[in-house]
This record gives sequence, C-alpha cells and structure tokens, in this order.
Amino acid sequence: VTDAPPLSPTKRTRLRRYPHRGLSERSELYAVLDAGVLCYVGAVANGSPRVIPMVYGRIGDTLYLHGSTKNQALVAATKGGSELCVNVTHVDALVLANSLFHHSVNFRSAMIYGSVRVVTDPDERLAGLRSAANQLVAGRGDELPPPTEAQLKQTLVVALSLEEASVKVRDGAPGGDPEDYETDIWGGVLPISRVFEEPWDDPKLRDGITVPEHVTRLVGKPTTL
Amino acid sequence: VTDAPPLSPTKRTRLRRYPHRGLSERSELYAVLDAGVLCYVGAVANGSPRVIPMVYGRIGDTLYLHGSTKNQALVAATKGGSELCVNVTHVDALVLANSLFHHSVNFRSAMIYGSVRVVTDPDERLAGLRSAANQLVAGRGDELPPPTEAQLKQTLVVALSLEEASVKVRDGAPGGDPEDYETDIWGGVLPISRVFEEPWDDPKLRDGITVPEHVTRLVGKPTTL
Repeated sequence: VTDAPPLSPTKRTRLRRYPHRGLSERSELYAVLDAGVLCYVGAVANGSPRVIPMVYGRIGDTLYLHGSTKNQALVAATKGGSELCVNVTHVDALVLANSLFHHSVNFRSAMIYGSVRVVTDPDERLAGLRSAANQLVAGRGDELPPPTEAQLKQTLVVALSLEEASVKVRDGAPGGDPEDYETDIWGGVLPISRVFEEPWDDPKLRDGITVPEHVTRLVGKPTTL
Repeated sequence: VTDAPPLSPTKRTRLRRYPHRGLSERSELYAVLDAGVLCYVGAVANGSPRVIPMVYGRIGDTLYLHGSTKNQALVAATKGGSELCVNVTHVDALVLANSLFHHSVNFRSAMIYGSVRVVTDPDERLAGLRSAANQLVAGRGDELPPPTEAQLKQTLVVALSLEEASVKVRDGAPGGDPEDYETDIWGGVLPISRVFEEPWDDPKLRDGITVPEHVTRLVGKPTTL
C-alpha cells in the first residue's frame, strides 16, 4: 500500500505482449525491486548495446547504482543525457507445459527507463551507497561506518528515477492450446526456492568478532535474491 | 574439457576491471550458460537501450533465442545486422565485507556480443526450440512432439554465435583495505542455495498422467537456475 501515483504507461513501458500480465501499482514495482540483488543495466556505447549486471539500492522513487569511476559503461551512461534501461527479474518456477511451444517461466519483472543523474551531494552519495548494502541485507548498510575519503573518490554514484517503469508478472499454470490436452504428456510447474545458507567469516577478521543479528536471522530463511 | 578454441578477447570482451576474474576456457563459458534459465538481451531500439529477459538454449557454439513474431525488440534486433549484447549471471553468495565500500556478490557471468541470424531452416528452428526446453529441464525438449504448424508460424527463432564472449567470476572472501581490518566489524560471505520444489500438475491435464522421471529426479536437488 502506497500513496504514490500508479505506474502510468508510456510509449515504451506499455505492455504490448500479454498486457494482462502488467501490474499498475507502484507498490508492486517496489516489491519486485526490493526482492532483488542484481539489476541488468542496458546502455548504448558507441552505438552498440551493452548489458551490465550491477547491484543497486532503492530509496523512495530513486534507484541508486554505483561503480568505479573507471567503469566505462557507467561513465558513458552519465554523458549527455544518455538513457538507460534497467531490468530486474525473478524466476519463481519453470513452466513445463505439455507442449514445447508453451514452455515458459513464472517470473516477476520490473523495467525502468530513464536518464541517470550523477550524484554529487555527499549526503546523497552516502545514502545511495548505504542503500546498496541494505539491498543485500536489510539494515546492514545503515550500521556500517561511511567509506573513507579515498574509497569515495574512486566511486561514481548515479541515480535513476523510477518515474518511467513497468511491472510484469507471470504466475500459475502453463498455457496450452486445446489440442495439447488431447495428449498423455505431462505438464506442470516446477517451483524453485532459494534459501540463505550458513555464513562464513572473512578469514582476515580479528579474532572474536561474531556474526551480527541482521545476518544470523536470515540463515535458513527463504530469499528471492 | 573441450577441444574448442579458448575465448579470445576482443576490444569489447577484454576485461578492463578486475581482469584476474576472467576465465579463458570455452568450457567455462558453456558451464555458465548451461546453468542458467534467463538471459538478458541488450538491444538498441530507435537509439535507446533495451534489456529483455528471455529464455534461451545452447547447441555447441550457438545460442538460440525465440519469441513471438510480434516481439518488437526481437524483430528489431534482426534488422540490418543489428547487434545484441547478451548477459547471463548467477549470484552465488552475498559478499558482506566489513566495510561498506567492499560489499559485493560472488557471481559467475557470461557476456556475448554479436549479430543475430534469423533461423529459417525447419530442422534448425525445431532444434533451437528444443534447446530452450532442454535448458529448463535436461532432456525434456527432446522428448516432446514438435510444435504445430500454427505455433511455428507465430515463432521467430534467432541464433547468436558464441564467438565473441567473455566469462567473469568472483569467488571467495570479501576484499578489504588494511584499515578495514582494524575494526571489530564482522564481514563474511552469505551463500544462497537454490533447490527445486515439488512440481504441481497443470489442472487441465487428462486424468492419470504422472510426472515424468526427467522432472521427478530434480525435486529437492540444487539448481543454479
């Protein structure tokens, strides 16, 4: 539940294929984004397409990406109002239809279009970096000390508005043409579950440092990451 | 182990960032691709970037994608030698460094660049479609009857050569600057495991159809999908 305006289709985000799979609530966009760990960033570099998997964070209606100031793709994306297309998709199950044609996956997918803004304000830069660690483990980004000046100097933080976005979900049983069901071929759905395993320590840690509660509480728990 | 030539870096696939994470064996490219279910296809449409998550299949050094003949992004990618960039990445663990700056993920990532070829030969079209179902569940694509003529007419099958590709892997403990280890902050790695759950039947199946062995043998088994 959110007071934010619903997702308004634009020419690019209007779903042409299977429009009934589109969701229109902004809270559904947030849910898909908040359940992920990697986004796939599409950019155009020298006229050619590039797809870069990146970690990200979200604060309100802003997606934060960061990378090295030497990251060519990210730097290129900040030049002259270049646009990005960002996708986050979770595969929840294999859709094993009883015909080859109707094989698919059950998924939740968010698509965002926009121009990136280089974040220069120190507070917003830090908030953007914290949001990325919070995305990995809720609360962790807020508990850690800020990066050093040297680390900050190497880091480019960019922001992408969630204004132009769409959400698409496939759920449930396989589709099938009537003649597919005249056969004796099995079809169904094979769910995939993801869980966090036991963490292990960075061997370079000082002795006696224990795993914090924000991590131990996740062990054995399902995740969509 | 493969007799295929190793991955030869091109201007685009040479790793500029963390080149030590690059793998050079073609078998390592195959392993990353074969462990996945979705690829992220980057294309340029009207000068703007697009990222489309798609299922795929692999036969030898060819990646097969398919979609509706009405899939605008896929159709656009077949026009006039347009290039694609395809990425497949698996997240194996969260890298929870003891400093904000060094947070990351352990991953295996394949990147492919190339122009797509529209597949017109009926045998290769069918093989490409079967490869996509085999990618979901090994052997399933080979066991199912071919699509109907009507289904085939709605389907665009395209091939992408794996000639220009790179593989990048991050594994192991967090990185960290020496001063990070002067603190009492915990850092470590939180692995994620994925398993197949019990399948459920398409409710539209005839009575008495049982789940085939190629599916039952996966239940409870780990997957990287």
